[in-house]
Amino acid sequence: MAEPKENVLMEKIVSLCKRRGFIFQSSEIYGGINGFWDYGPLGAELKRNVKELWWHTMTRQRDDVAGLEATIIMSPKIWEASGHVATFSDPMIDCKTCKGRFRADQIDEIACPQKPSKCVNECHGEKTEARPFNLMFQTYVGPTATAADIAYLRPETAQAIFAQFKNVLETSRQKVPFGIAQVGKAFRNEVTPRNFTFRSREFEQMELEFFIKPDEVIEAIHGTVAIPTPNSQLLSPEPNWGWQAWHQYWVEERVRFYEGIGLDRSTLGFHRQTPAELAHYARACTDILFKFPFSKKDADGNVTGDELEGIAARSDFDLSQHARFSGKPMGVFDDDLRAAWAKLPKEKQEELWKRYYENRKNYLLKSGVESEPAQKQATDDANGLAKGQYIPHVIEPSAGVDRLILALIANAYSEETKTDDKGKSETTVVMKFHPRVAPIKAGIMPLLKNKPELVKKAQEVRDLLRPWMNVFYDEAGSIGRRYARQDEAGTPFCLTIDFDTLGEKPELLDTVTLRYRDDGRQERLKISELLDFLLSKIR
Amino acid sequence: MAEPKENVLMEKIVSLCKRRGFIFQSSEIYGGINGFWDYGPLGAELKRNVKELWWHTMTRQRDDVAGLEATIIMSPKIWEASGHVATFSDPMIDCKTCKGRFRADQIDEIACPQKPSKCVNECHGEKTEARPFNLMFQTYVGPTATAADIAYLRPETAQAIFAQFKNVLETSRQKVPFGIAQVGKAFRNEVTPRNFTFRSREFEQMELEFFIKPDEVIEAIHGTVAIPTPNSQLLSPEPNWGWQAWHQYWVEERVRFYEGIGLDRSTLGFHRQTPAELAHYARACTDILFKFPFSKKDADGNVTGDELEGIAARSDFDLSQHARFSGKPMGVFDDDLRAAWAKLPKEKQEELWKRYYENRKNYLLKSGVESEPAQKQATDDANGLAKGQYIPHVIEPSAGVDRLILALIANAYSEETKTDDKGKSETTVVMKFHPRVAPIKAGIMPLLKNKPELVKKAQEVRDLLRPWMNVFYDEAGSIGRRYARQDEAGTPFCLTIDFDTLGEKPELLDTVTLRYRDDGRQERLKISELLDFLLSKIR
Repeated sequence: MAEPKENVLMEKIVSLCKRRGFIFQSSEIYGGINGFWDYGPLGAELKRNVKELWWHTMTRQRDDVAGLEATIIMSPKIWEASGHVATFSDPMIDCKTCKGRFRADQIDEIACPQKPSKCVNECHGEKTEARPFNLMFQTYVGPTATAADIAYLRPETAQAIFAQFKNVLETSRQKVPFGIAQVGKAFRNEVTPRNFTFRSREFEQMELEFFIKPDEVIEAIHGTVAIPTPNSQLLSPEPNWGWQAWHQYWVEERVRFYEGIGLDRSTLGFHRQTPAELAHYARACTDILFKFPFSKKDADGNVTGDELEGIAARSDFDLSQHARFSGKPMGVFDDDLRAAWAKLPKEKQEELWKRYYENRKNYLLKSGVESEPAQKQATDDANGLAKGQYIPHVIEPSAGVDRLILALIANAYSEETKTDDKGKSETTVVMKFHPRVAPIKAGIMPLLKNKPELVKKAQEVRDLLRPWMNVFYDEAGSIGRRYARQDEAGTPFCLTIDFDTLGEKPELLDTVTLRYRDDGRQERLKISELLDFLLSKIR
Repeated sequence: MAEPKENVLMEKIVSLCKRRGFIFQSSEIYGGINGFWDYGPLGAELKRNVKELWWHTMTRQRDDVAGLEATIIMSPKIWEASGHVATFSDPMIDCKTCKGRFRADQIDEIACPQKPSKCVNECHGEKTEARPFNLMFQTYVGPTATAADIAYLRPETAQAIFAQFKNVLETSRQKVPFGIAQVGKAFRNEVTPRNFTFRSREFEQMELEFFIKPDEVIEAIHGTVAIPTPNSQLLSPEPNWGWQAWHQYWVEERVRFYEGIGLDRSTLGFHRQTPAELAHYARACTDILFKFPFSKKDADGNVTGDELEGIAARSDFDLSQHARFSGKPMGVFDDDLRAAWAKLPKEKQEELWKRYYENRKNYLLKSGVESEPAQKQATDDANGLAKGQYIPHVIEPSAGVDRLILALIANAYSEETKTDDKGKSETTVVMKFHPRVAPIKAGIMPLLKNKPELVKKAQEVRDLLRPWMNVFYDEAGSIGRRYARQDEAGTPFCLTIDFDTLGEKPELLDTVTLRYRDDGRQERLKISELLDFLLSKIR
């Protein structure tokens, strides 16, 4: 771990993750491999829950999003179109003395491999100029490893969505506005992976590309474009939304998602990219941040946090690039637009035509197309409006699974110190996961393991709940020990089967002790009511 | 597609997969990339359902299996230990005339790239001897692409499980016998990907490594090892099971899984590997086959099928290899063994010691260890028994997700021809997926889309069911058309909201028409009973 020693909380989290099987170093028995992390039994469940909830929220719970699961290795032409081959790189400097290679912006911070005690600049080795180092992992597909066989591990899941846009549109019975969602691994050959799983070389993304009508099309059909204020409550999409409303809606939707899995708004931060930070084609990008233990303070002493997710308004850049590079049309046809256009006054047609033309021309010029063909292409594109044709714009909420898992773990981590009758105090860890994401939903425990009737009843409760949720049956050790183990695993509920369950107190027959993780509160609940109670908490 | 023209069914399946959004060629707009396939909206749901069911059945529904989610790129030393670096290769022949590279066993079948009409042997080019071509995709991790930075995309998910065996054992509160399950992508640079998604270069596996006590340990503790007959019904594990019973149990468990998602036993085949086929360390391997449309007939004219899953008894080979290559102990300690051993008669101790010693020595010798150190190491290992120490053996049920999806699609595919009153007949496709795996569980349809009260009621039904399952709301076109669309998607149930639902016939108020996909049967069901009815079918 490259954590500073003073970051005690981060050290505790890393230690808990290994001790309880949330996260292990990949290939640990072989000394590990820098920038790669495995999820153990609890971590794998936590991660599955988060991905499943995202998928459920983003696709199954909506009419307007379809799913996709594309390959990690795709045609290398995709990465030419996206710009990754040309520009997805860090500037690197080689030291001719120690033969090390360093990120130009970090060369003052990093130890020289030959003189670890000294920073590189102190070793006074002769250095090269900074040169771009592409962050995509490269491999060869097929038996002959020639330049024509080069392929890349995708550095993001988004591009597959753009490349398959037409296939999905044609098979899913969707119409713009609609989205395509994907969850999957991506890879970046980061020069300096750091902050535990926050910046790793193999990671997972949850990305939605939500395709919308350009504002000119909205205006042609609806007369005006709805412009939200920063305080507008955008809960339910409206046909006259332009990119600003859709962007704001998705930022709010995503915050609601985080709130729904236990990340209160107070744990989050926001960064709206400045015009200087934005890519030339982007209209806006809002980053949702989480205040990690390693997050730095700003000039005012406030922690703003590090990025969990970016929600970008990317104009029609991506589809346009793939249309140009593949030669396949990426536009859509819209009957409403064609009908509305025919009814527009000529001046309005001209105004909208001009705006659309200018946007298209600017995109083409900035993408390196010469002036004359750019004007010709933009004219063709703008002429398409009258026929009901346009290239959709896109809003992209793009979240990192691993950093969200780390945020959930950091957010859940708490310690409790108890002092017993003899004055002996003990500090235990309680992982306060929201029940929706908790790896184990309920611990199920017979009071004593050597009483077959208690064991049998506890196993019946286990078998009742297990088809519906992940439960953990535990009969070993004192009940206090078993509760503490579940607290560390973040299990929100424990169910204890005791002699009252069997009817020792007749009025308590077929009830169990329900124990709450967060405050230790206990109450009796009927076995027949358990499933509904737990389902209401975990869904 | 490399399918022979006469395989009409395969062509129909490939066509349906693209037309309905089950499976697309990866990077199709760029001409595709050979051996890579994307899952569209319906395919992504189908695949998620299968993976989720496997995970649920193999981990959450059992006390004795823990989950893992490891990285695709791991330390290259893992692939030295597993043998993949040395031996995971196909023999290849280069043609010095046409510069093509061909699999030695296929050189007679494949067209010469320069003379496509002639097979390679006819082109009479000078050829090299066959040389091994490693099937692992290779890349470099870190900024300097030196030999020390070589890493591989995992060619199987299994090895991560072995490498993390100790971490999982120590954090999951499991004891042998127990298993570790993983679902994830794997990559093989196949020379000739073929049969649609059956043999692709990027694929997904669902693997369980189930660790068991060696037979000598079972015998020491229980006196004898339970040996099953081929007809033994092994439904519930017993403590005295040796590797044969566990192997047979897992074959049967896995067949029950396939039956549970609609693959009848009659669609499956079995192949028990012969001693000549088995790896030197393997005790047995049973392949579960599916009769694909492209599966070949054997000498007797019977279709045996192609592999869906292999269930291998791999002895203690894998853990032993990682122990040797990492220098980290992979043995476990078992108090029951130590206690039982102390009570064994001396002759029995000697007999078991000798058998364990011979097994260990044979493994070491076959793995290239010299005679003297092998004997010394085997002696140490056998001496461990008295202390309660041994290296677990493993049973490995290893399934391919993509070929299972293809099997489910092939199995579900059926055609129906209907002739209307005017004598006009139409053939439609009905995908008869088991409701558990069907991408969409219910189609929800207002009889007419221009009656707001029908639409509102239908959307209420949609909102009732959607939190629990994937449903599809459809209001466009005639009801017959909409049924046909859901038949093609494989949706087992359609729910139609009509005027009776609204109370036109008072006794039918708040009921819907439930239409069954497989026989077109229709019945009325109360809305209040819908959720329970559907849940009982899809779970």
